Amino acid sequence: MALQLYIGNKNYSSWSMRPWVLLTGAGIPFEEKMVRFDSFDAQSAFKSVVAAINPVGKVPVLVDEGFVVWDTLAIAEYLAERFPEKHLWPSDAKARARARSVCAEMHSGFTALRSHCPMNIEASLPEAGRIVWRDQAGVRADIARLEAMWTGLLAEHGGPMLFGDFGIADAYFAPVCSRIRTYALPVSPTVAAYVDRVHQLPAVQTWVQQALAEHDFIDFDEPYRSRP
Amino acid sequence: MALQLYIGNKNYSSWSMRPWVLLTGAGIPFEEKMVRFDSFDAQSAFKSVVAAINPVGKVPVLVDEGFVVWDTLAIAEYLAERFPEKHLWPSDAKARARARSVCAEMHSGFTALRSHCPMNIEASLPEAGRIVWRDQAGVRADIARLEAMWTGLLAEHGGPMLFGDFGIADAYFAPVCSRIRTYALPVSPTVAAYVDRVHQLPAVQTWVQQALAEHDFIDFDEPYRSRP
Ligand SMILES: N[C@@H](CCC(=O)N[C@@H](CS)C(=O)NCC(=O)O)C(=O)O
Ligand SMILES: N[C@@H](CCC(=O)N[C@@H](CS)C(=O)NCC(=O)O)C(=O)O
Repeated sequence: MALQLYIGNKNYSSWSMRPWVLLTGAGIPFEEKMVRFDSFDAQSAFKSVVAAINPVGKVPVLVDEGFVVWDTLAIAEYLAERFPEKHLWPSDAKARARARSVCAEMHSGFTALRSHCPMNIEASLPEAGRIVWRDQAGVRADIARLEAMWTGLLAEHGGPMLFGDFGIADAYFAPVCSRIRTYALPVSPTVAAYVDRVHQLPAVQTWVQQALAEHDFIDFDEPYRSRP
Repeated sequence: MALQLYIGNKNYSSWSMRPWVLLTGAGIPFEEKMVRFDSFDAQSAFKSVVAAINPVGKVPVLVDEGFVVWDTLAIAEYLAERFPEKHLWPSDAKARARARSVCAEMHSGFTALRSHCPMNIEASLPEAGRIVWRDQAGVRADIARLEAMWTGLLAEHGGPMLFGDFGIADAYFAPVCSRIRTYALPVSPTVAAYVDRVHQLPAVQTWVQQALAEHDFIDFDEPYRSRP
């Protein structure tokens, strides 16, 4: 198999979800290499596997016939170049630039949402979400920005995905859609409908089903639940 | 003029430096729009100018005949597509993928170095750097990663820049080179020589001279100096 994708736990690893959903959604075959989350200590099993292939020691990592690409955004660009017929970025140059702006914005931003609402697919945490929403202005600002971004893009490109057909931007925001569901964050009907369409994508459904089957409990990703 | 680039203070704005040095170093003409840093409050002059063109309210922003591209990485990709003859990314597909991995790594990483050693071109802070180096394991880890990355790339591609000729990756790390100088962080001779070569690039020299002429003092970017 030409492509291998190293990922972390499906329940928790939001960065891993992006290229996995992208590859699966685009119908690009790959071999999945799942490396379970642990302590992330230098001596941990996770680090010893991941650091052997990626100098940054993080997942996701794409390996193409032995050539290693790390970081979700670089993986997305690599796949877009490697499979031009899949149109992973929008074909129109301006739409493509806009898609890259919103993905780069996600890549280094939305820190309040990411830290207060870590991805946790199997959990249902509406009460934690209610308190976060009440107390964290940064989370409210992040959601307000997503409201403006998604509503604007869906109107401009006509849906059902952010730039019309499914692509990198949707894969990039799929973990955000999952957080909005888990924490029951209040969103407009337009955004709720997009969140639902992303959740119904077959690639996302498969990821979610496999996340539900994991039954790991990683303490540092669980600010709101106690170990069962 | 087709292209306009909105930037912040040259002394402080590390993100602005990247596309400015890229455009200037590649000889792509553009009009500079400098928006002085202030409080960044919603009502501030900075925000009113920047938020009018960029929904994220941050610099840098590239405007191409009215079309807005925000975020450094999306700007770099846009310029690489718009000016293919400039070879802003390496021409070889694998080298290009590697350049994207290290830029994406910079884009969302090196948080210890970024927070403890904010860019401050006019300052000389070897004593602050000494204490940061002693106390901050994260900064030491960030520099160790840069040592490995830069030494490996310079050996693989033969220098003088990371991928041979000047390109996006060098522009991306130019503010890091500036921090290593300002805080006198201990680096190997190979890395010190690269830092020096980047510092000597005409585009970087011009940016530095203009930074030195600014004489602004922005409190939240000054953890180690008191207002003159
Ligand atoms: N910027 C990276 C972030 C990757 C990342 O943070 N991955 C996490 C799992 S979701 C990880 O591997 N963490 C291990 C660690 O921090 O040691 C990307 O986009 O790929
Ligand atoms: N990920 C963004 C970061 C841009 C950024 O943080 N810019 C700073 C100045 S260096 C800014 O405009 N800050 C204003 C604010 O945070 O309100 C990029 O790569 O362009």
